[in-house]
Amino acid sequence: MIAPLQYTTPPVISLMTDFGQKDGYVGAMQGVILNICPTATLIHLSHDIPPQDIRRAAFVLYQAFSYYPAHTIHCVVVDPGVGSNRRAIAVRTNHGIFVGPDNGLFSLVLAAEPVNVIEAVTLTNPDYQLPSVSATFHGRDIFAPVAAHIANGIPLSKFGPRAINLVRLDSGSHSQPRSAMHPRTSRIIHIDHFGNLILELTAHDLDDPEQVTLTIGDYVITSLSATFADVEVGDLLAYIGSSRDHIEIAIRNGNAAQKLGVQVGDEIGVDMVS
Amino acid sequence: MIAPLQYTTPPVISLMTDFGQKDGYVGAMQGVILNICPTATLIHLSHDIPPQDIRRAAFVLYQAFSYYPAHTIHCVVVDPGVGSNRRAIAVRTNHGIFVGPDNGLFSLVLAAEPVNVIEAVTLTNPDYQLPSVSATFHGRDIFAPVAAHIANGIPLSKFGPRAINLVRLDSGSHSQPRSAMHPRTSRIIHIDHFGNLILELTAHDLDDPEQVTLTIGDYVITSLSATFADVEVGDLLAYIGSSRDHIEIAIRNGNAAQKLGVQVGDEIGVDMVS
Amino acid sequence: MIAPLQYTTPPVISLMTDFGQKDGYVGAMQGVILNICPTATLIHLSHDIPPQDIRRAAFVLYQAFSYYPAHTIHCVVVDPGVGSNRRAIAVRTNHGIFVGPDNGLFSLVLAAEPVNVIEAVTLTNPDYQLPSVSATFHGRDIFAPVAAHIANGIPLSKFGPRAINLVRLDSGSHSQPRSAMHPRTSRIIHIDHFGNLILELTAHDLDDPEQVTLTIGDYVITSLSATFADVEVGDLLAYIGSSRDHIEIAIRNGNAAQKLGVQVGDEIGVDMVS
Repeated sequence: MIAPLQYTTPPVISLMTDFGQKDGYVGAMQGVILNICPTATLIHLSHDIPPQDIRRAAFVLYQAFSYYPAHTIHCVVVDPGVGSNRRAIAVRTNHGIFVGPDNGLFSLVLAAEPVNVIEAVTLTNPDYQLPSVSATFHGRDIFAPVAAHIANGIPLSKFGPRAINLVRLDSGSHSQPRSAMHPRTSRIIHIDHFGNLILELTAHDLDDPEQVTLTIGDYVITSLSATFADVEVGDLLAYIGSSRDHIEIAIRNGNAAQKLGVQVGDEIGVDMVS
Repeated sequence: MIAPLQYTTPPVISLMTDFGQKDGYVGAMQGVILNICPTATLIHLSHDIPPQDIRRAAFVLYQAFSYYPAHTIHCVVVDPGVGSNRRAIAVRTNHGIFVGPDNGLFSLVLAAEPVNVIEAVTLTNPDYQLPSVSATFHGRDIFAPVAAHIANGIPLSKFGPRAINLVRLDSGSHSQPRSAMHPRTSRIIHIDHFGNLILELTAHDLDDPEQVTLTIGDYVITSLSATFADVEVGDLLAYIGSSRDHIEIAIRNGNAAQKLGVQVGDEIGVDMVS
Repeated sequence: MIAPLQYTTPPVISLMTDFGQKDGYVGAMQGVILNICPTATLIHLSHDIPPQDIRRAAFVLYQAFSYYPAHTIHCVVVDPGVGSNRRAIAVRTNHGIFVGPDNGLFSLVLAAEPVNVIEAVTLTNPDYQLPSVSATFHGRDIFAPVAAHIANGIPLSKFGPRAINLVRLDSGSHSQPRSAMHPRTSRIIHIDHFGNLILELTAHDLDDPEQVTLTIGDYVITSLSATFADVEVGDLLAYIGSSRDHIEIAIRNGNAAQKLGVQVGDEIGVDMVS
């Protein structure tokens, strides 16, 4: 028996999509939510995920989710398979409830420590969807109303049958970080707004953060810095980043991705002395 | 006698502008609203309407408004005529209250089914505007305070005299969809963030959605699909879209507008067998 | 003895950063705030400040702050010195509470009339920060939690010792407008989304707004207009702008910055007959 949600503070619903901000799509989703749950606190993680970029959305969610109240409902709609037979799901964990298409969007979060899945369901019950469900906009017609009904305290079991074997991002992706103690390379899994490179490599993979050499093309970084101010403006540095201890490479007050000409998926050389 | 607004849930104010997100303009509007109505739920439809693009704003509002609670106040400021003698208006309907310049912004909504105008007023009463009204920023000085006062329950009749003959977008625009049963062409009235083309043509204009041929330059689409997944990735399709049943043309996981080299206002060939 | 904050309406926290909208950074800050102060009304001034552009952030805040309730907490994070010994501060005034790095972000606001500083503190008390403070993301780890604790009513004196000699933007900047009665030039201090130029010059610097000539390259504007509608579409005009009476130069329904090829910091010729 799973205890129903009890809110002592306003319910929080976060939205993330690849819809951009020039159409009425996000606006429609918000209206749907307010119609069902007028007291919801609506938060926007990002609507500027590149179209169909499930990996980026998964990483942005992974950067942010653990800072939210545990009762937060994260509604994420990056949905290239809308209208196909991909499942629509809701997943309740000890660190938030996740609503969206079952296409791997939640795999980074669900693999993160200390996240435990409490229950997961397939969203099949039309009672909690808009009366008319379009074939191309489930964000408005299914995911937004489901998120709002969850915010109203409807138990997940009402939305549909238990879901197992959720889709995970395929291997070779950052959903399955290598656990080798001494990787020789590490992939760039994210490039942020500042052009900082976020590596698959984390501080936990390193025996000694003072004994690591990173190689990007002709550039070599021979140790980790503590912060930007440890190097001169315009210089390259590596450091334990703010996103769950992943190692980052940046240029102080500059754009490392531009200067280095790299992109997500590229490999960085990693050497450790141990 | 029109009954005053009675809110049983927090008042909702949506904002849409062409102000972008790099200045303090939207910020100032929000501050004005919170000073007058601290309990308002503030929603943003879009601030990325291209400068002075009344038609796009009208369409984005039309995509979203019907999903909002009927007491929502939509404050829309795309206002190339600010400081001229164009009227400032508030229009109360059975599907929302609309506040903004009288330049056609609301014409798509007001022509939509089942929207009925209950009352419309010209915003002339300075008691509900900022003490000092600039000549160039009525969003902050007139429309935001009016929206907030409406949210506080002030009846529309307090804001100024009855407004008649509201401006409508001129003919040739999508404000007056052709009602011909068998149009030979249909105009692109909107191109969304994904590059999907939204046509003036709606499902209601078609005798038989399975018997329609659309022609765009050298490309021919010989029937409507149900959803993206009905075609291969990269292929062109047409379908009944999610925006009030307008027909859309898209490329699955691609950008149709870019590939086809079309823009808003271009005509698509339409042939129906009936 | 400074009276503690007493809120009769929900606390308001505004956020401004240079983080963009494609990562989870702003999302994480919002989560932190909601964890500490679930009833806060969260407002976004802008997250599209160009990276490290303290001057633009200072101006955007200056455009907006005076329209907010006096109890609003403005949390501003444009922080090229994060991790260095630059101070983290909170400044309480009669027109808002300002939280962020001590790098000049607040100097325009603090120099504006009628703003008076009531108290300013350095944010050194770890009790009001996240348990683990990263070296590169104080927006999430220090500024967001401090803003939320202030929203909860914690007195500023609890956050750390009194701060004096706050950093101001250096001279030559728009933080110190020239007071000469008859300046011969005026600098462009801001270019907005529409391409309108905002000058350092204000209406208060002019003896007679009808007797001023502005020169930009080959263009001469021989008097101030009241508003855009006073000139033809496509024509250049100058007017007393909506941002605290600074003089602006625009092209009606066009982009003056593009047409004139100017940027922030460029000088405009100013001649007055008096």
